Amino acid sequence: MATVEQRLAELGLTLPPPPGAVAAYEPWAVVGNVVFTSGQLPWRDGKTLDYAGSIGREVTVEDGYAACRLATLNAIAQLKAAAGGDLERVRRVVRIEGSLNVAPGFAAATPKVLNGASDLINAAFGERGRHTRMIYTSPELPLDTPCLIVAWAELG
Amino acid sequence: MATVEQRLAELGLTLPPPPGAVAAYEPWAVVGNVVFTSGQLPWRDGKTLDYAGSIGREVTVEDGYAACRLATLNAIAQLKAAAGGDLERVRRVVRIEGSLNVAPGFAAATPKVLNGASDLINAAFGERGRHTRMIYTSPELPLDTPCLIVAWAELG
Amino acid sequence: MATVEQRLAELGLTLPPPPGAVAAYEPWAVVGNVVFTSGQLPWRDGKTLDYAGSIGREVTVEDGYAACRLATLNAIAQLKAAAGGDLERVRRVVRIEGSLNVAPGFAAATPKVLNGASDLINAAFGERGRHTRMIYTSPELPLDTPCLIVAWAELG
Repeated sequence: MATVEQRLAELGLTLPPPPGAVAAYEPWAVVGNVVFTSGQLPWRDGKTLDYAGSIGREVTVEDGYAACRLATLNAIAQLKAAAGGDLERVRRVVRIEGSLNVAPGFAAATPKVLNGASDLINAAFGERGRHTRMIYTSPELPLDTPCLIVAWAELG
Repeated sequence: MATVEQRLAELGLTLPPPPGAVAAYEPWAVVGNVVFTSGQLPWRDGKTLDYAGSIGREVTVEDGYAACRLATLNAIAQLKAAAGGDLERVRRVVRIEGSLNVAPGFAAATPKVLNGASDLINAAFGERGRHTRMIYTSPELPLDTPCLIVAWAELG
Repeated sequence: MATVEQRLAELGLTLPPPPGAVAAYEPWAVVGNVVFTSGQLPWRDGKTLDYAGSIGREVTVEDGYAACRLATLNAIAQLKAAAGGDLERVRRVVRIEGSLNVAPGFAAATPKVLNGASDLINAAFGERGRHTRMIYTSPELPLDTPCLIVAWAELG
């Protein structure tokens, strides 16, 4: 049975260090045995933003998908930190929240874009990744990012 | 003391089968004794969408209210599935989240529109339906729907 | 060790009575030992709204910050009510949700605006105020308010 990090490696992905928060808050909190992350941006290497603007205008559906996937990789890095470094302690990913910056008139493909988050969670966690989700669309997001992703997970 | 389904019947409402998710996620998850649904659309008969567009433009306040009510009926169907088929196991509806697709300049009546969700929860669950809520407005929503509704409930 | 209310007093702030909900829902709910508020508006004295419109258009960044701070003061009043009148029972503020009404093209400063919420939580609760947060932006909000703030807290 592959671990979460082995599955990520099979996808060619390595967990980054968990990004710090961009303002006066924490990247994650644990209550009881549930961890909640803050909104995660599609940062890479802790310093660059590969995607900027609104999905459906500056950002294509494919790049929106990739941005959601990257932000979710950062969310998984936060879950790892919250789990004391061991993602095998994640019993269940409970919820993914995606706030998507979309251009006026863009609507039909938002579930497909947010699958960038869901597909990664499902691939990395398997049965333990069976999550609920909620989409919000936003006219603008911090740092002109196309998405913000939050993950909730139950720890074992 | 009427059951939740009896109260719905008094309103002329029958619970639909719980709609499947429209993408790679689950319609509900339980953590401890709390159930969280995914965002529910105003589907009817699992296949049609009676309302399309933005509230305040294509969709009237009255139809926005009806769309929130219908999406909430689907959310109640999810709660029933999560409760193993018995809504009497719902001890308390904890939170309603409503993401409303509104036209530019439409703002004053959003609480009234989301009462389509709250009024149904209150009517169906009585004291057990006393919920918190949060409104988000969105410039666009998946499938051009006017609303997405999430419900959280504590199970007994 | 100063209490939360003493710290607020040092900031020149007094907790208002917890505002009632503006529609058919409750201002807070407790599940297990976690309290969730409903979306809080920047009300003052239970009857006036000092800020109206979109941040980046009618509302400056500074006033957006002040509106988030005021709505958060109301959220703290709800936490106090939920804690039976004793804010010292708040073990941890878990999450702040901010839905910000922003003008088209306004994006870069949203984290700074929502620091109006985070800075107050941090100042009032100290280590117990270390919270996660999620930003949503909205094209319109109820009553033309620039922000809605939700707080989650763990009670001791």
